[in-house]
Amino acid sequence: MSYARQMLDTYPGAFGVDATVLAAAIDALSDCAQACTTDVDADLSEQNPAEMVRCIRLCLDCADVCTATLGVTSRQADYDSDVTKPLLLACVAICKSCGDECERHAQHYEHCRVCEQACRRCERACRELLDALK
Amino acid sequence: MSYARQMLDTYPGAFGVDATVLAAAIDALSDCAQACTTDVDADLSEQNPAEMVRCIRLCLDCADVCTATLGVTSRQADYDSDVTKPLLLACVAICKSCGDECERHAQHYEHCRVCEQACRRCERACRELLDALK
Amino acid sequence: MSYARQMLDTYPGAFGVDATVLAAAIDALSDCAQACTTDVDADLSEQNPAEMVRCIRLCLDCADVCTATLGVTSRQADYDSDVTKPLLLACVAICKSCGDECERHAQHYEHCRVCEQACRRCERACRELLDALK
Amino acid sequence: MSYARQMLDTYPGAFGVDATVLAAAIDALSDCAQACTTDVDADLSEQNPAEMVRCIRLCLDCADVCTATLGVTSRQADYDSDVTKPLLLACVAICKSCGDECERHAQHYEHCRVCEQACRRCERACRELLDALK
Repeated sequence: MSYARQMLDTYPGAFGVDATVLAAAIDALSDCAQACTTDVDADLSEQNPAEMVRCIRLCLDCADVCTATLGVTSRQADYDSDVTKPLLLACVAICKSCGDECERHAQHYEHCRVCEQACRRCERACRELLDALK
Repeated sequence: MSYARQMLDTYPGAFGVDATVLAAAIDALSDCAQACTTDVDADLSEQNPAEMVRCIRLCLDCADVCTATLGVTSRQADYDSDVTKPLLLACVAICKSCGDECERHAQHYEHCRVCEQACRRCERACRELLDALK
Repeated sequence: MSYARQMLDTYPGAFGVDATVLAAAIDALSDCAQACTTDVDADLSEQNPAEMVRCIRLCLDCADVCTATLGVTSRQADYDSDVTKPLLLACVAICKSCGDECERHAQHYEHCRVCEQACRRCERACRELLDALK
Repeated sequence: MSYARQMLDTYPGAFGVDATVLAAAIDALSDCAQACTTDVDADLSEQNPAEMVRCIRLCLDCADVCTATLGVTSRQADYDSDVTKPLLLACVAICKSCGDECERHAQHYEHCRVCEQACRRCERACRELLDALK
């Protein structure tokens, strides 16, 4: 069981969403931020970094947005839909863009394939959390 | 002149928004994230931290969202409105909530007054950037 | 297999340390940052937050230092011991302090026990990475 | 007066270091993290990003370490020299390396000159804080 799930199962307060959906989102956000940070470095190590500029930028944006979404969704008390919903929408959008760009490079670069998978999983998990919060 | 403005004035690419508006947002986001981080610590040092729990949580959320928005708006090339706009909306919403909560404590705690000012300025600067990006 | 391990296995450059040790550190840092962020929120939800102030501060510091160490160790090319070694030392120290403080509360609060475990594992993984880098 | 200085002047607890030195470090860390984040994006926009790979990596490391140091030094209560000193040493080292690399490019790229200045100022401010904490 992930730390996220264990923390939710021992949380003293109530949170208005299914713990399985929330823990899945927290784990996916954490993994996606980490994969994107590493993919930036892998892209920079390729022979022609100029081809990877767009991928690097999207990975940097994706890591930043996932990190903020991770923090906000980990603090479930005082949940505010005016903050959480647009933040999750921004996260879904950047995971989609970053996943699409990584897919373009996945044939040549295995690290982009791994990063694409992390982005796709995070996009799905954030959509499911958005639906559960409605 | 702030570093943000100097960096924008020496930026090699084009960015589709007025540099004055963008630099003002970047500076306000950076200051607001810092003020919120410090206000959490100041709140924890007050005699009755239980009264400050909501303020602490909002400051933590505000710092996280401002930091992500700072990163994304600082990378102006490959601007994507599907990411930047909801992110700025989330940032406006949390700056508003956090500023309102800090205002409630501002009479008793000067540090909350300072943090409120940073939140209000950041909320305005993000709204202006949102308008400029339309 | 974690994303960290998959990313290292597909990394285009060389890195001067055993991939198993490095991936274990990256995974432990990511989990510890997440556990500490969540534990802050759980501490704030307890009946007497005043008793948890030291735990909250240490968890905030631990999350910040783990996040930076995660970023730097994920970028293995251009490794610089003058940066990485003191950073890992700071991370070992804060994981030790935060783990000790969480242990004090673990009998009463299960979330602190989970966080303690994440801190202990991260402390060990960072020590092993430090040894491997010597 | 910066927000950092205003927050310190209204801080409810005691902190064992001169407020002028501490506020100067906090402001310099915040500015340096921001300058490095923007310089990464500027480097990626140059005609030959391959020449800028080392600069990009150092700027990413510098932003991460400055951000963590900013958080830890902003939480002055429960100051722990086993954490803060190695963290400040790591920060001095990365600001020095990043400043040196930016200086190499400063003749051709004005954005690297601005970033170099932010790194040099942050290196000095962290050294002064280290001395003040002894």
